[in-house]
Amino acid sequence: MERTCLAVILAAGDSTRMKSSKSKVLHPVANRPMIAHVVEAVAKTDIGAVALVVGRDADEVAKAAAVGGVEIEAYLQKERLGTGHAVLAARDAIARGYDDVIVTYGDVPLQTEAPLKAARQALADGSDIVVIGFHTGKPTGYGRLLVKDGELIAIREEKDATDAERAVTWCNSGLMAINGRKALELLALIGNNNAKGEYYLTDLVEIARSQGGRVTAVDAPEVEMTGTNNRAELAVIERLWQERRRHELMLSGVSMIAPETVFLSYDTVIGQDALIEPNVVFGPGVVIDGGAIIHAFSHIEGAHVSAGATVGPFARLRPGADLAEGSKVGNFCEVKNGKVGEGAKVNHLTYIGDARIGAGANIGAGTITCNYDGVNKSETVIGAHAFVGSNSSLVAPVSIGDNAYIASGSVITNDVPADALAFGRARQEIKPGRAKILRELALAKKAAKKAKG
Amino acid sequence: MERTCLAVILAAGDSTRMKSSKSKVLHPVANRPMIAHVVEAVAKTDIGAVALVVGRDADEVAKAAAVGGVEIEAYLQKERLGTGHAVLAARDAIARGYDDVIVTYGDVPLQTEAPLKAARQALADGSDIVVIGFHTGKPTGYGRLLVKDGELIAIREEKDATDAERAVTWCNSGLMAINGRKALELLALIGNNNAKGEYYLTDLVEIARSQGGRVTAVDAPEVEMTGTNNRAELAVIERLWQERRRHELMLSGVSMIAPETVFLSYDTVIGQDALIEPNVVFGPGVVIDGGAIIHAFSHIEGAHVSAGATVGPFARLRPGADLAEGSKVGNFCEVKNGKVGEGAKVNHLTYIGDARIGAGANIGAGTITCNYDGVNKSETVIGAHAFVGSNSSLVAPVSIGDNAYIASGSVITNDVPADALAFGRARQEIKPGRAKILRELALAKKAAKKAKG
Amino acid sequence: MERTCLAVILAAGDSTRMKSSKSKVLHPVANRPMIAHVVEAVAKTDIGAVALVVGRDADEVAKAAAVGGVEIEAYLQKERLGTGHAVLAARDAIARGYDDVIVTYGDVPLQTEAPLKAARQALADGSDIVVIGFHTGKPTGYGRLLVKDGELIAIREEKDATDAERAVTWCNSGLMAINGRKALELLALIGNNNAKGEYYLTDLVEIARSQGGRVTAVDAPEVEMTGTNNRAELAVIERLWQERRRHELMLSGVSMIAPETVFLSYDTVIGQDALIEPNVVFGPGVVIDGGAIIHAFSHIEGAHVSAGATVGPFARLRPGADLAEGSKVGNFCEVKNGKVGEGAKVNHLTYIGDARIGAGANIGAGTITCNYDGVNKSETVIGAHAFVGSNSSLVAPVSIGDNAYIASGSVITNDVPADALAFGRARQEIKPGRAKILRELALAKKAAKKAKG
Repeated sequence: MERTCLAVILAAGDSTRMKSSKSKVLHPVANRPMIAHVVEAVAKTDIGAVALVVGRDADEVAKAAAVGGVEIEAYLQKERLGTGHAVLAARDAIARGYDDVIVTYGDVPLQTEAPLKAARQALADGSDIVVIGFHTGKPTGYGRLLVKDGELIAIREEKDATDAERAVTWCNSGLMAINGRKALELLALIGNNNAKGEYYLTDLVEIARSQGGRVTAVDAPEVEMTGTNNRAELAVIERLWQERRRHELMLSGVSMIAPETVFLSYDTVIGQDALIEPNVVFGPGVVIDGGAIIHAFSHIEGAHVSAGATVGPFARLRPGADLAEGSKVGNFCEVKNGKVGEGAKVNHLTYIGDARIGAGANIGAGTITCNYDGVNKSETVIGAHAFVGSNSSLVAPVSIGDNAYIASGSVITNDVPADALAFGRARQEIKPGRAKILRELALAKKAAKKAKG
Repeated sequence: MERTCLAVILAAGDSTRMKSSKSKVLHPVANRPMIAHVVEAVAKTDIGAVALVVGRDADEVAKAAAVGGVEIEAYLQKERLGTGHAVLAARDAIARGYDDVIVTYGDVPLQTEAPLKAARQALADGSDIVVIGFHTGKPTGYGRLLVKDGELIAIREEKDATDAERAVTWCNSGLMAINGRKALELLALIGNNNAKGEYYLTDLVEIARSQGGRVTAVDAPEVEMTGTNNRAELAVIERLWQERRRHELMLSGVSMIAPETVFLSYDTVIGQDALIEPNVVFGPGVVIDGGAIIHAFSHIEGAHVSAGATVGPFARLRPGADLAEGSKVGNFCEVKNGKVGEGAKVNHLTYIGDARIGAGANIGAGTITCNYDGVNKSETVIGAHAFVGSNSSLVAPVSIGDNAYIASGSVITNDVPADALAFGRARQEIKPGRAKILRELALAKKAAKKAKG
Repeated sequence: MERTCLAVILAAGDSTRMKSSKSKVLHPVANRPMIAHVVEAVAKTDIGAVALVVGRDADEVAKAAAVGGVEIEAYLQKERLGTGHAVLAARDAIARGYDDVIVTYGDVPLQTEAPLKAARQALADGSDIVVIGFHTGKPTGYGRLLVKDGELIAIREEKDATDAERAVTWCNSGLMAINGRKALELLALIGNNNAKGEYYLTDLVEIARSQGGRVTAVDAPEVEMTGTNNRAELAVIERLWQERRRHELMLSGVSMIAPETVFLSYDTVIGQDALIEPNVVFGPGVVIDGGAIIHAFSHIEGAHVSAGATVGPFARLRPGADLAEGSKVGNFCEVKNGKVGEGAKVNHLTYIGDARIGAGANIGAGTITCNYDGVNKSETVIGAHAFVGSNSSLVAPVSIGDNAYIASGSVITNDVPADALAFGRARQEIKPGRAKILRELALAKKAAKKAKG
């Protein structure tokens, strides 16, 4: 598109019904602030600039909106006097002169670029105002779009509608595109002679028509136009986002046994023929290669899982976890900032932090890399095909050589050379008959306690 | 309301279709026996007394019903001869003389006080019998409420209904309010001249009208009138309960990413701006303060989590766990009867039982408080800002002083003074080349095994 | 039924839309390849033989289909020229002569024997072709079944249908039964004079009628006829399977608090009065006895749980786990190839592999059976009422006697006699004031690091 465009994103609401200590548009969907989703969609519409109208938490909102590679200017709306008033907070930006001005909302995070593009096309085709509508089975409460001969003749509010008009199921989403060359002139004509004394953007329909302008409407999928006013609605938005993304992934060749139990982040990448079992949570920054298996009850964030690697059940991968091909991280294991080499196994009850594990190494159940001394973090290096016996403690910084063997239950504080055996554990002693005596003593103690209290 | 009231709760059913070793009304909804939910709702209706009609598991049912601060008398229905017969099991209570008698059911656990109050109001306004109905999209099988000039003229059973009557979608819930001064007289007139030879409470409609009495109906939400006859229906009841309560919490300012995966108990308290991630189970007795974060895959029961504290993922808090502000209990950790001080961290693979952890203390991965000697349980006390190295065993009773430091892999059996370093672990030894030999021996053993069998 | 029957299962599709490295019919539903579900249903229809028409991954498909105790012959369809062509790949089998030939599909895994039996009965009653139809609320895209005087007069494709015909909601499932004595003759008459140049089995309706044959249709539930073309549809199939099986189990007396979070395998057995909490995954080979309790977040595969035993939360039972009555496996515990004796407790953070635990034994938190030395696996035997202190390592092969006592934090490498106390841990040492010094050194190191980098 050759035409220039400014997007005005309204994000200044008080969010009262969210009952939140932060602005509604900062609440996350798919682990990313709502406002970032909106900017991302807008950025795909070939716009030149974004005017972000902010109110509450202005700085945080502006910061959260800085995605998508577009230039963003924040404009403060000091009072909340309606959508028409909010758009004019960005008066300076509009005044720079754009062919198109699109107005959208920071709390409509499922929107995509398609309806915005359609609205811009309608401007290019000669409309002065383009309203984005959506078809719904439950129109009650929405303004109905009344169309005649291809033009939008009115947005009829529920309370003013005739029965015939109420039967209309095409409704106003609030999103709008405006002829940028006439925008300030038209916006200036919006009045506040109504019950709430607010300036309504929707009045532009009547204003433009009264000036002989052309007003039309384009359609958007209902789901994309879903807004959010409280946390129950936010949860619905999250669900719709997740459903959309899971479906895309499944169609691309990812298997999910129970997709409704898999929670993705905005940037989750999963390759073809990967299997995701029930109850998996993906935090931000995850890349799962094709053919990997993520078992049930896994929690993965900032991690990379290679082809043929398996994770879980009950595994947690934290940022910096990197599993090579054919490696395995099993139940009740946590890996943070740790490379697990090709075919290496971390199968049970293990904590791997700040570590590199060589190819084919076997880390026994209950192994802990002691990477933190209360102040500093240090690194553990485990060589290829090393065997770390169960319940060992590897006190970092420490290095275990290739093919070395750590006896079960050892505390390892010094480096172990390749091929060496290391142990650090006490010799076992046996006191015959002593368990019986201990038990009797304990029972006596219990009886004494009971007698006392 | 000045009028006196007796509530009769029918809870004597055989529960055959539950295929259960216990009475249906003892089955829990939101971790509380169904019957307790009913008593709770009834207790909010300003009643004077509850007559509980019991059959199977009479003692357990009466015990489970003892909630809500109302006086409850149990009456045994020895034979199951229909609802009319069941109500008369409480004849002695009714005979004491109340203005209002309400009849409800132990297996309708979603009921609230509103319809009961509406029914009592209708009695106060001059009705002799008040039937509680509900509107439904699936009326098939229910008795239809036929109303004329504001009076209920009949409850028409499916099989006796005309096509026009079948089109009625207002149905009989079974719940009823009766003029208490006429109750025994009217109940005595119910006969059993029907296919099953049972006494049906619904006959009161016809009986009262034939005596010139006034019969009316009031409405209740369909969800509240849902009954439960088998375990699939019980699961539906549970789901409806959970949906209702999650919605309330979200509207009050609690964030849930996937509310359908959060399971609450009847008494779960969660403050504003708390975040509950997917897959969290709350047992009874939980208080989550505002601003706390409960990560995915957490299981919490009988515990308190303060503002700014974080739990999980994969954490289990058991009764007596008490997390102070800013503290953290992380993955694969269990806390039972344990205080975690302000800002203290229990991050990985740890068992804390019968312990107090001071502010700012750091408990290393794999730490176990050994609180049980097979007979007695003992306490572990960890001072402020103490550092417990990974994989340590703290054998209770034992006390670790403020700022003390426990070396990784230690077994601590004696108290450690403040600022002291303690360790209890063997010195590491290294046998060069010995891993290679051990591996060869093991391979030889494997080969020998294989050769044998 | 006295009549002989051949079932032809078409399983040669290219599965392009699955975007998979393996054939669609190998994808699992309830942990069993789709094709096995189909063979199982077919096997219940008293058939004599199954002709499996395979294409892609022919050997794996034939292998996966070997269930249900019926004889299966695989026939390779070399080219994909339509369903009529596919059936003729099994020409040799059909030519052996059967009274009935039924044609079904490897990607319709929810089918049961009932519609197949109904179709065979229709053949027995004189039909030459029997089409299996299903009623649906969304008929768009399906061929409609047009019936007159009890005969199926046509399957009308969407594009050829009149408005009246499009209003028909009885649709063609694709499944069909054919008079086995006429099958080859009729199949030979199918032509490929159509847009795609393929041979369509549905043409048999017209062909048979033109020959004066009798064509009828029988009904199947829509759910059972659901096919699967991509992984999103596969997930729907899985959900429908799970819903059906959960419902059966609940009606049989199994309690599920949130059935939608319980994932069953094709062979999961659960007894009456068992309680399954939310978020439980059952792999293949599980038997849960009546009255057992499976807490939330449990993962169970190849295991047996006896009456009165409890599992979880956060427990994993792997193949060979066998829990006796009243035993308990608790949070963050894994049991693999391990018997847990009557009333024995494995409560926290424990790995039990290749072990037998005696009745009433108590295994402390953090215990690890060290069953693997990098090459061989060995067994651990723990006697009745033994007490294994927390954080112990039991290095197999090793045996702990009845009533023996292992001190916390011990590494046990030698057998412990009954009633004996064993320990293998270092004596604790205390260095007064030394923690303070260590902390200061660490802080200095941190500062140095920071200065450098």
